[in-house]
Amino acid sequence: MIKVGIFGATGYAGIELAEILQYHPDVAVIFATSESYTGQTLNQIAPQAPAWELVKSADAPLDQVDAVFLCLPHAASAATAVRARAAGCRVIDLSADFRLKSLETYEKWYKVEHPKPEWLAEAVYGLTEHARDGLREADIVACPGCYPTSVLLPLQPVVSAGLVDGTIIADSKTGVSGGGRKAKINYHFVEINDNLTPYGLGQKHRHQPEMLEQIVKWAGDNKAPGLIFSPHLVSMPRGILSTIYVPLKEGVTFDQVYALFAEAYQNEPFVILLPPNQNATVAHAVRSNRCAIGLTMGDDNTLILTGAIDNLTKGSSGQAVQNFNVMFGLEETTALR
Amino acid sequence: MIKVGIFGATGYAGIELAEILQYHPDVAVIFATSESYTGQTLNQIAPQAPAWELVKSADAPLDQVDAVFLCLPHAASAATAVRARAAGCRVIDLSADFRLKSLETYEKWYKVEHPKPEWLAEAVYGLTEHARDGLREADIVACPGCYPTSVLLPLQPVVSAGLVDGTIIADSKTGVSGGGRKAKINYHFVEINDNLTPYGLGQKHRHQPEMLEQIVKWAGDNKAPGLIFSPHLVSMPRGILSTIYVPLKEGVTFDQVYALFAEAYQNEPFVILLPPNQNATVAHAVRSNRCAIGLTMGDDNTLILTGAIDNLTKGSSGQAVQNFNVMFGLEETTALR
Amino acid sequence: MIKVGIFGATGYAGIELAEILQYHPDVAVIFATSESYTGQTLNQIAPQAPAWELVKSADAPLDQVDAVFLCLPHAASAATAVRARAAGCRVIDLSADFRLKSLETYEKWYKVEHPKPEWLAEAVYGLTEHARDGLREADIVACPGCYPTSVLLPLQPVVSAGLVDGTIIADSKTGVSGGGRKAKINYHFVEINDNLTPYGLGQKHRHQPEMLEQIVKWAGDNKAPGLIFSPHLVSMPRGILSTIYVPLKEGVTFDQVYALFAEAYQNEPFVILLPPNQNATVAHAVRSNRCAIGLTMGDDNTLILTGAIDNLTKGSSGQAVQNFNVMFGLEETTALR
Amino acid sequence: MIKVGIFGATGYAGIELAEILQYHPDVAVIFATSESYTGQTLNQIAPQAPAWELVKSADAPLDQVDAVFLCLPHAASAATAVRARAAGCRVIDLSADFRLKSLETYEKWYKVEHPKPEWLAEAVYGLTEHARDGLREADIVACPGCYPTSVLLPLQPVVSAGLVDGTIIADSKTGVSGGGRKAKINYHFVEINDNLTPYGLGQKHRHQPEMLEQIVKWAGDNKAPGLIFSPHLVSMPRGILSTIYVPLKEGVTFDQVYALFAEAYQNEPFVILLPPNQNATVAHAVRSNRCAIGLTMGDDNTLILTGAIDNLTKGSSGQAVQNFNVMFGLEETTALR
Repeated sequence: MIKVGIFGATGYAGIELAEILQYHPDVAVIFATSESYTGQTLNQIAPQAPAWELVKSADAPLDQVDAVFLCLPHAASAATAVRARAAGCRVIDLSADFRLKSLETYEKWYKVEHPKPEWLAEAVYGLTEHARDGLREADIVACPGCYPTSVLLPLQPVVSAGLVDGTIIADSKTGVSGGGRKAKINYHFVEINDNLTPYGLGQKHRHQPEMLEQIVKWAGDNKAPGLIFSPHLVSMPRGILSTIYVPLKEGVTFDQVYALFAEAYQNEPFVILLPPNQNATVAHAVRSNRCAIGLTMGDDNTLILTGAIDNLTKGSSGQAVQNFNVMFGLEETTALR
Repeated sequence: MIKVGIFGATGYAGIELAEILQYHPDVAVIFATSESYTGQTLNQIAPQAPAWELVKSADAPLDQVDAVFLCLPHAASAATAVRARAAGCRVIDLSADFRLKSLETYEKWYKVEHPKPEWLAEAVYGLTEHARDGLREADIVACPGCYPTSVLLPLQPVVSAGLVDGTIIADSKTGVSGGGRKAKINYHFVEINDNLTPYGLGQKHRHQPEMLEQIVKWAGDNKAPGLIFSPHLVSMPRGILSTIYVPLKEGVTFDQVYALFAEAYQNEPFVILLPPNQNATVAHAVRSNRCAIGLTMGDDNTLILTGAIDNLTKGSSGQAVQNFNVMFGLEETTALR
Repeated sequence: MIKVGIFGATGYAGIELAEILQYHPDVAVIFATSESYTGQTLNQIAPQAPAWELVKSADAPLDQVDAVFLCLPHAASAATAVRARAAGCRVIDLSADFRLKSLETYEKWYKVEHPKPEWLAEAVYGLTEHARDGLREADIVACPGCYPTSVLLPLQPVVSAGLVDGTIIADSKTGVSGGGRKAKINYHFVEINDNLTPYGLGQKHRHQPEMLEQIVKWAGDNKAPGLIFSPHLVSMPRGILSTIYVPLKEGVTFDQVYALFAEAYQNEPFVILLPPNQNATVAHAVRSNRCAIGLTMGDDNTLILTGAIDNLTKGSSGQAVQNFNVMFGLEETTALR
Repeated sequence: MIKVGIFGATGYAGIELAEILQYHPDVAVIFATSESYTGQTLNQIAPQAPAWELVKSADAPLDQVDAVFLCLPHAASAATAVRARAAGCRVIDLSADFRLKSLETYEKWYKVEHPKPEWLAEAVYGLTEHARDGLREADIVACPGCYPTSVLLPLQPVVSAGLVDGTIIADSKTGVSGGGRKAKINYHFVEINDNLTPYGLGQKHRHQPEMLEQIVKWAGDNKAPGLIFSPHLVSMPRGILSTIYVPLKEGVTFDQVYALFAEAYQNEPFVILLPPNQNATVAHAVRSNRCAIGLTMGDDNTLILTGAIDNLTKGSSGQAVQNFNVMFGLEETTALR
């Protein structure tokens, strides 16, 4: 049994993670932390979660575990990673602290000093399907953001092949759990229900630079495409649907692009490549670790990709477990079906 | 034009009231208060509300208005009523402060000392259809709670006629706006959506003594029925449906009961008495000032009443305006269709 | 491997069953039928279901399976059971055809002639927790209705102990999948969303006689309580919450009743007995095979039970698999966590 | 009083129209038709609609009315328009039959022969804010589709000014009532709730040519922009939010564009032009005749417009009444607040 601890068990990602790990046959969860609910059990917060007692972060017995999952706010996460690495634990971080390679970008967007900038280069960006080699030996894995997962998995084949010419537009729609389990009036049922709200339009969302960094990396020697990212908050609890408009280089055909996707994803257990001209929907992916991808042409030169995930599973805790499985040499799908 | 002020304009009742009063042909709203949003306009909080500037309660020009609507928490409401009465304003109170006649019951359930107990006797309980005589001269009107409106309008004919023998059970289901516009994790979209939660079962909800006081009054010399009240929080933004089980005295027939309701309500503009054996639904009443009432028999001795209202309209701000119209001698339906 | 077939795979119960059975380690699903979608695969109807090809009922190879699950309308179900029994299959029926012992009650409420009345006596009513002995040897298991599961599991201890005196009222609230996957205007999103609709009040729902038959059986020599059953359709996709008002015999105490429940259910893997005075909510049970039960007193003589299940899981396909596991001597929880 | 009739009163547009017209002070509704519900009253279908008796279309007394509203499927609508014009009535058509000027485009997309192609040129495309001159004398008004209203009102100023260079992308999200009141499994609550579905991507939706025809007209001598239109079905009952990506000509500034919008819309009673960099949300417009418009820059060259309407009000019946008010010389806002 691999021994693990969870920091920040009472947010939506933490609860989801606990629900997954409680049935993981190779994992023993040694501790789960919460600052606000210390002394209670997790199922008092979420009735279907396991009845684990919650301890303060400071009391977590790091010396008893092989790995930790960090479901903490940024900055707090990196600080805990430092503690965990000092105790010899491998770190699966669900926050944004190790996602970016550029310290400057991090500090500009997150408006904090990074507690451990020297680890940014080493951390593996855990978009599992495109990170397996690095994951096996990684000590720090940065799980991608939920929006980036829904956008980058669809974009990777066409960007890496250098077929994009111009600016990509990602119009994303998310369920409300993406905003976290917070007592905010904006997340009140009455404010959300039957409403639909764009936010962060005009390059104001932190996931834009995160995605762009991967796109630039994949573009390699090709001119990197730009990215306009438009998130929208939708009246549903979970799930993301990203509709992605990709200007193709002149002469690139749909069949050529579709063949790339088939090659990239046909054997992936968690990627559902839909038949040509079918669109991904939230129902394809919600409450699963799947990413469904659809391809169609918007006009002669514009590829439309649809990418659907569950923001809490493939977009967060499910992908974290998938990464964990790779890190520890387990069957990648364990506990995820 | 009758000049009015609104205290507490940024809660759900206050917003609803503003949306109604902005089109009231006989009303000029002179001020609207908010402690948290002072300096902003109301439509910054609720985009379809009027763009009234919000002032602090202490700055409200009470001397310029004929009446005030109080959409404040209990205790705060009574204190403001004292100020308003001192300035000569008539008071329409949407809080619980003047609903109960018994000071003891008030202080037991609301756990505060009442700022003006001597006004409890004088205040008119504004269940409009059964309060018109008192309303015309009233200086203080206590608008009923949302649940009580949905239960008492259906119960009045059968209780007043002395046909009940035993304990009434009111199983009520409410939309989430009933809990107020508060940043609480319990009202987070993800916690409410697709969930259904009983709460306050076992006589723990403050609306139970409020209803019982009216029932006892209506029972008069008859033995007053008991009341078990079970509220439930439902995944909808507004609307209440109360299913009410009424044990009838031996020999009372359905036709006899239905005739009572027809007599009581057939000319009421806001009461929809459904044909025998049809049930009220939330759709009958939501976003209107209506109360829909259905009657059927559960078994030989048990009448089942269904009562549907919109908790923010007939259950709160709509009924407040209906009471205001009566108080000031206006057509009762003004601004309410 | 136990070989099974599913009749009626494209309704909500059939889809749920397929999603459960695809990961059952001891089961091979040999066929799945659909009359309307023959030739398609199940995941074309429900994107997360397995990609099983759908065959016509008449083409189902009954000789290749050990057991069949019938997710068919009543009457069609019994007719298929006759075919399946002739081929030597054990039958797990999710319809109403074998739930009632009284032929007269069946034909009165279902308004069809029963195709095989002589099997009514033999069929086991599969409320698993109270049916294990019969299940092990059963050839025909009638899985209880969804409402009855949510009402009878809470009622069994107190009714069997003879502590009820008077008429029980079950006020039940269901998600919309309970009505089946039918193209009806009543189930249109716009008609359901934000609405709440009582229906079948006044003893007009077929689950009332089903429940009453069990109550009478459990009452034994005690006078059987009556039952008023009031179903309500709620704006949520799945889940049932039943609020049950139970008049207790004079002198019966809450502690006495709670002790009965603790004894009956403390070791049940799928029954969550909540601490005294906590209420069951849909969130306790939805998307699981659990039944959560809460107890509190409404007044001195009235016990209030809350029972929560997922109508498609414990109320239908989950309980069907639980019964199947018992019938075939498997661990009862297999494939149900 | 102007006498009118409604054809097709029991769809969502018809019901909405009836709810508006019942309180229109200058209108008497003489008849309302329905083929499926003849003999019933409208409030039996929609409990808050007026209790008008429904008659068959063939029995509608066309000689008694000044104008008719057609809430009928395409083709049926044009056929009824022919009857109505023969009787001297002015026609407000909510279907697609007279929206397009090009007969070829109509017959290609709607796959029927047009019953009266010679009227296509004469019919006024009733996007009210840009159609007033034509409306005053019009005998046939084609009310725009719901999506086009949400896209064209935001696009008009920037397209008419010739500031667009390239292909516009309109990513639209709609509530479910947009699909009509039809008993289809796709609109079942369970299929829609918590789901989000793109459809008609890749230029497969009939509203794309409708919008393009207006864009081409407005572009005038400038090169007309292309249009990619991507509709999405969202888990909400009503409301549309269109996020529109507009490639600007080199050198065009945000301030310049914003000034155009201010000039176009600052005095419009139903257009809410939001401050710079604020986005329209469904809450700005739902259950009102408003169109809210937001402007921000996506990158240096890409304007992002957000347009929000209620698909049943400004996107259908509300705009129909607005057009009617202009046609008959009434105050344009009558019955629409």
